[in-house]
Amino acid sequence: MGGGKAKTAITPTRDEDFPTWYQNVIRAADMAENSPVRGCMIIKPYGYALWENMQRVFDGMIKREGVQNAYFPLLIPLSFLSREAEHVEGFAKECAVVTHHRLVAAEGGGLKPAGELEEPLIVRPTSETIIGDSMARWIQSYRDLPLKLNQWCNVMRWEMRTRMFLRTSEFLWQEGHNAFETAEEARADALKMLDVYAEFARDYLALPVICGEKTADERFPGAVATYAIEGMMQDGKALQAGTSHDLGQNFARSIGILFQGRDGQEHHAYTTSWGISTRLIGGMLMTHGDDDGMLMPPKVAPQQIVIIPVIRDESTQGAVYEYANKIAAQLRDKGLRVFVDEREERTPNKMWDAVKKGIPLRVEAGQREMEAGDVTCVRRDLGKDSKETLSVEAFCAKAETLLEDIQRNLYSRAEKFRDERISDVKTVADLQACFAGDAPGFAKAPLALLDDPAYAPLRDELSLTTRCMPFEDEGRTVLIGKAY
Amino acid sequence: MGGGKAKTAITPTRDEDFPTWYQNVIRAADMAENSPVRGCMIIKPYGYALWENMQRVFDGMIKREGVQNAYFPLLIPLSFLSREAEHVEGFAKECAVVTHHRLVAAEGGGLKPAGELEEPLIVRPTSETIIGDSMARWIQSYRDLPLKLNQWCNVMRWEMRTRMFLRTSEFLWQEGHNAFETAEEARADALKMLDVYAEFARDYLALPVICGEKTADERFPGAVATYAIEGMMQDGKALQAGTSHDLGQNFARSIGILFQGRDGQEHHAYTTSWGISTRLIGGMLMTHGDDDGMLMPPKVAPQQIVIIPVIRDESTQGAVYEYANKIAAQLRDKGLRVFVDEREERTPNKMWDAVKKGIPLRVEAGQREMEAGDVTCVRRDLGKDSKETLSVEAFCAKAETLLEDIQRNLYSRAEKFRDERISDVKTVADLQACFAGDAPGFAKAPLALLDDPAYAPLRDELSLTTRCMPFEDEGRTVLIGKAY
Repeated sequence: MGGGKAKTAITPTRDEDFPTWYQNVIRAADMAENSPVRGCMIIKPYGYALWENMQRVFDGMIKREGVQNAYFPLLIPLSFLSREAEHVEGFAKECAVVTHHRLVAAEGGGLKPAGELEEPLIVRPTSETIIGDSMARWIQSYRDLPLKLNQWCNVMRWEMRTRMFLRTSEFLWQEGHNAFETAEEARADALKMLDVYAEFARDYLALPVICGEKTADERFPGAVATYAIEGMMQDGKALQAGTSHDLGQNFARSIGILFQGRDGQEHHAYTTSWGISTRLIGGMLMTHGDDDGMLMPPKVAPQQIVIIPVIRDESTQGAVYEYANKIAAQLRDKGLRVFVDEREERTPNKMWDAVKKGIPLRVEAGQREMEAGDVTCVRRDLGKDSKETLSVEAFCAKAETLLEDIQRNLYSRAEKFRDERISDVKTVADLQACFAGDAPGFAKAPLALLDDPAYAPLRDELSLTTRCMPFEDEGRTVLIGKAY
Repeated sequence: MGGGKAKTAITPTRDEDFPTWYQNVIRAADMAENSPVRGCMIIKPYGYALWENMQRVFDGMIKREGVQNAYFPLLIPLSFLSREAEHVEGFAKECAVVTHHRLVAAEGGGLKPAGELEEPLIVRPTSETIIGDSMARWIQSYRDLPLKLNQWCNVMRWEMRTRMFLRTSEFLWQEGHNAFETAEEARADALKMLDVYAEFARDYLALPVICGEKTADERFPGAVATYAIEGMMQDGKALQAGTSHDLGQNFARSIGILFQGRDGQEHHAYTTSWGISTRLIGGMLMTHGDDDGMLMPPKVAPQQIVIIPVIRDESTQGAVYEYANKIAAQLRDKGLRVFVDEREERTPNKMWDAVKKGIPLRVEAGQREMEAGDVTCVRRDLGKDSKETLSVEAFCAKAETLLEDIQRNLYSRAEKFRDERISDVKTVADLQACFAGDAPGFAKAPLALLDDPAYAPLRDELSLTTRCMPFEDEGRTVLIGKAY
C-alpha cells in the first residue's frame, strides 16, 4: 500500500463516515439487515445469538431481584392507552393501529381489509397500561405488594427515520413493571433497577455508563422521575442505554390500582417501569467496534473462540480438522463457546470473517501446529501484535484468563475514551466552544446553566439534549451532548 | 360428607363438565387468565415459568439439530401473504390488519387512527412468506444449504371462539423454517423434526403422542405433506400437539428461493416448516390434570418440590423456617427447583395451593419433624396414600428418583388411558357405534373407509376429523376423532 493508510476490513472507516461505517459493520459481521417491511429489521443468527446471551444473563439478574416473568397481550385497546394523558400524547404519533380482522377479495383482484373492529387496537409501544390493568385486578391488599413483573417481548413504535438496532419500528426488549406500597419503595426500586442495568452494562457488555436522572423534558411520558444509563459512542454522541421510571401514583390513579393498606384504608399503589432493548447491541457496536469490524465482549459473545483449521495440503485435512475439534472439545469442557470453522472457504476469508465478527480469540491450527502439539492464537482487541504460538495445554489453561483480559481491556479503553471527552463547562459560551468540533463528547455543566436564556437557542441550533444529571454530582450538574 | 363423593379442589369435576373443569384448573393453578383484549390471554408467572422451562429444553434440542435462532418482522406486507395462493386462503379469514400508523384527536373527544398506510400490514399468523423472502436473498448456491432457522415469537390468528392456551387470538410459539437442496432431504427433515417433537412430548411433557401424516384436507395451507403428533385428552378428544410440514417447492416457487445447484443450473429450494406453541400447556393440563387441579411433569415443572413449614406455635416459626430453608438448599445443590412457601397464609391453604398447582412433591416440615431431623413428603400423582415420613438425608438422597418415578407414572397412566380408548373399526357403522358414547376416544379405520359415501355425512353429523395416518401402520390406517 506504499505509505498509504493500512487496509481495513470496513470502508469507510469510523473517521471518514461513522453512520455508514456502523451499517457496514453490521453487514460485515452478519448481525442484521433491513427488512422489506418499512422500519423493521431482521436479526440474523449471529446477532440473535448475542441477544440470547444478553437475555440469559440479564434474566438471571432480575430473577435474583424477585422479578417474575409473565406475558401480556400484544394488542392494547385504544381506550387503555388513552387513560394516562401524558402517556398517550407521548405515543400517539407513532402507533401501529389494527383496525380490521380479516381480508376479502378486492374488486380488480388482490385482497383488502374487512371486518372492521369496534374499537381499534394498538400494537404495544410499551405495556404500562395493559399490565397496569392486570395489576388493578391482582392487587387487593398490601400483602400482595410488592409485585414485580417482567416480560420479554416485541414492541412497536412507528419511526420515520430508522437505523438498525438503534431505532427501528419494531424492537425486542424486556419491560419490567413493579408495584409498591409506598413512594419511598418505588423510588428505591427504580434506582435499584438502574443499578442492575449499570452492572449488566459494565460487567457483561463492557460498556462504561453514567447513571443519572433525566431532566423533566426528557422524562418518560407519565413518569415522576426517569433514571437512565448513558453511554458515549466513538463519534462522541450519547446513547441512552437503559431507563428506569418512577411512575409515582400517576398510572395507578388513571388505571385504578388500589390496595387496602395497613391502616385499613384504600390507597393507590406506587409503580415503576424499566426497560432495555436490542438497542444495546448498537451501543456495543459503536463503543467497541473498529475499522476492521465488530468486537464482541467475551462474556456475551456468541462465539468466544474460533478455531480455524489451516489446510495447506488436502491430504492432511482430515487430521487437521480432527486436531481442531479435539482442542474445541477441551475448551468446551471448560464451558467456553467455541466455533470450529470447517466451512468450504479460503483460509484468509475465514480469518477476515473472524475479525469482522469480532470473535474475541482466534486460534489457527495447521499441520505445523498439529505436529508440534501447538496452536497459534490472536486476540481480536490487540490484533496481530498479540499473535503467539503455544502448546495446546498452555493455551487451554489460559484461555479463560485471556478472555477475561479482553473483557477488561474493552471496558477500560472505552472508559478512557469517554473520560477524555467529558468537558467541564461553566457558561453557554463554554458550551458553544465545546461543541465546535466534530466528535465533541459530553459537556458537564452546572444545572443552573439550563436557565440561561442563551441556552435554549444554542441547544436547538446544535441539536443538543440534556443526557442526565449524574448521581455522582448529586443533582448539581447536567451532562449535555448530541444523542442517538 | 357422609357417604357422598369425596371433596375435590376443582368443581365441577372432569366427569361433570370437562370444559369448565379445564378453565377452573387454569384459574386454581394461577397459570393464566383471559385478558380484556378479545381473544387474547395473559400468561401469569406460574404458567410462564412452565413455558420458559419448555423453551429451554426444546431450544437445546433444536440447536443440537443445527438450527439457528433469528428474528423476523412481526408485520407482513399484504402482498407477501398473497404470494402462495392456498396459504393466503388459509389465513385470510383470521388476520389482524394494521392500516394506520398514528392517532389523532377525534371530533367529540378521544382518538382515532390516522396516517393510513399505502399497503396494509398483517400481524404474522405464521412466517413462511417473510422468512422465505429472506431465504431468497440469503441462499445463492447449494453451498448455502441446508439453512435451518427458527424463531420464538408471538403470532396472531383472529379466532372467534377462544379457549385459554388451546385457541387464542395471540399465542406464543416457535416456528422453524428449513431449506434444502433436494426433495428427499426436505421430507427427511420434516420427519426428523416431528421425531424431535415426539421425543420432547414423551420425555419431558409426559405426553404419549401418535405420530403420523395428515390427510390432504387437514394439511397446512401450501404444504405437500403435513406430519403431526396427536395426543388424547381425558375427555377422549384429540389435540394436535405439534406439526411439521414438507412444503416441497411450493413456497420456494411462489417466493423465488433459487439456488445454483451442483449441476450449475438454477433450482428452487425445498423447504419445511414446523411449530409447537403454548397450546402444549393446555394439552398437559387436559392429559395430567385431575379433580384436584394441575399435575406438572417434573422435568418442566416450575417448582419440582414445595416445602411447607408447618407452624403450630409462633415461637418456633424462625427455627422451622430455617429448617425448611436448609433442606431447600440441599435440594437446590442437586439442581432441583424448590419453593419454600413462607407466605403469610394458613397451612391448609398452602397445602391446597400446592395440590392445585400440581407441584410434583410436597414436603411438610413442622416442629415435630425438625426435632426428629425428618420431613413428611407426599407425591402429587399418588396423593395421601403416598405420604411418608423419613429423615432429611433419606429424602434428599431419593428426591431425584421420586421425581423420575412421578414423570414415568404420568406418562404411563396417560398412555394406558389412551390405549384403552382406541378402537379398531372396519365400517362406517362401526365408526358410528364407536362415537355413540360421551368420551369415545379415537377410532382406527382402514384408510379406504374415508372413501365410503356414508363416511362424510357421519363425519359432519358427529364433528369428526381425521387426526392422522399413523406411521406405525405405514399409511394403511387413519385415526378418526373429535378434536380441539
